[in-house]
Amino acid sequence: MTEDSAQAKGNFKRLVPEGDSLERLVCVECGFINYENPKIVVGSVVHDGGKILLCRRAINPRKSYWTLPAGFMEQHETTMDGAAREAWEEANAKIAIEALLAVYSIPRLSQVQLIYRAHLAAPGIAPGPESEEVGLFGFDEIPWKELAFPSVHWALGHYREVEGQTHFPPFVNPPGEFGDLKEQAGL
Amino acid sequence: MTEDSAQAKGNFKRLVPEGDSLERLVCVECGFINYENPKIVVGSVVHDGGKILLCRRAINPRKSYWTLPAGFMEQHETTMDGAAREAWEEANAKIAIEALLAVYSIPRLSQVQLIYRAHLAAPGIAPGPESEEVGLFGFDEIPWKELAFPSVHWALGHYREVEGQTHFPPFVNPPGEFGDLKEQAGL
Repeated sequence: MTEDSAQAKGNFKRLVPEGDSLERLVCVECGFINYENPKIVVGSVVHDGGKILLCRRAINPRKSYWTLPAGFMEQHETTMDGAAREAWEEANAKIAIEALLAVYSIPRLSQVQLIYRAHLAAPGIAPGPESEEVGLFGFDEIPWKELAFPSVHWALGHYREVEGQTHFPPFVNPPGEFGDLKEQAGL
Repeated sequence: MTEDSAQAKGNFKRLVPEGDSLERLVCVECGFINYENPKIVVGSVVHDGGKILLCRRAINPRKSYWTLPAGFMEQHETTMDGAAREAWEEANAKIAIEALLAVYSIPRLSQVQLIYRAHLAAPGIAPGPESEEVGLFGFDEIPWKELAFPSVHWALGHYREVEGQTHFPPFVNPPGEFGDLKEQAGL
């Protein structure tokens, strides 16, 4: 039975399958196991003439806060194609990817973020359906208190650390940081 | 309704939800959308005294072929914790991660592989339940014709390219390669 047909019909219960050590969603009719795995977010810090592309979210969570063009990777694409697709969907931006800037793990959300450094490959940006507004910001103009997620802060800081470098290992989470929202600090 | 309770009870059909552009598995009773996303494989090239750890697979696919300690990332862990867990489960190896060696995309399988470079942090390896055998191989002793997957080849070659270096960007797929099995070439 294929995954699609099982999931379309399945009668799932949470069980520990034989030979496994963790509970899984198992179809009690056919035995199909629906493994749940962390999700990949792909995105990018896109620069153009010394400015950085940000999008004001039109959707929850964190509606009206500013974020990088980023989102869940789709089936059957590569990580870089996914990051380019998100820039297109959220900001109508055609981008050229330069390097992997960071790999962040958010274990609370079972999320891995692959954030690239990229530049605008063609002029022009405009909000897509998930953005209220998009803009290019100098580093001193970034609305630091209105950023949507801690990892947006991290990525902008990490971008700054390797500005002008072409050969660098990707960053990871800042020490002790796991992406929890801290409202009071404006994060 | 939570994801768990919806999936345990859901009556899923494949539909394009309102405002979306792709078919998703939607519960026709409660409207819950079960998004399918690429899966993350975490693993490592583990070295010890100039030799590299390989595991002979005890399970399909590619049973009895040699592979790196690697597997699907679990919920609520970090990528590096996942890679260390896989080395422990498959080879009873305690490892210390050094650097991100490569990020490979296998779009046909909707898979992203994060492969680290690591070294044995304590002496001793032994096969876990998913390995028939484990071993440490000099580069010239690697069973090149009996490697399980193309990405095992890629990772071993990429490991060799940066041996002795500490500061390098991660590799990506070799040009034009997407991880398809090529039986005739022994891949």
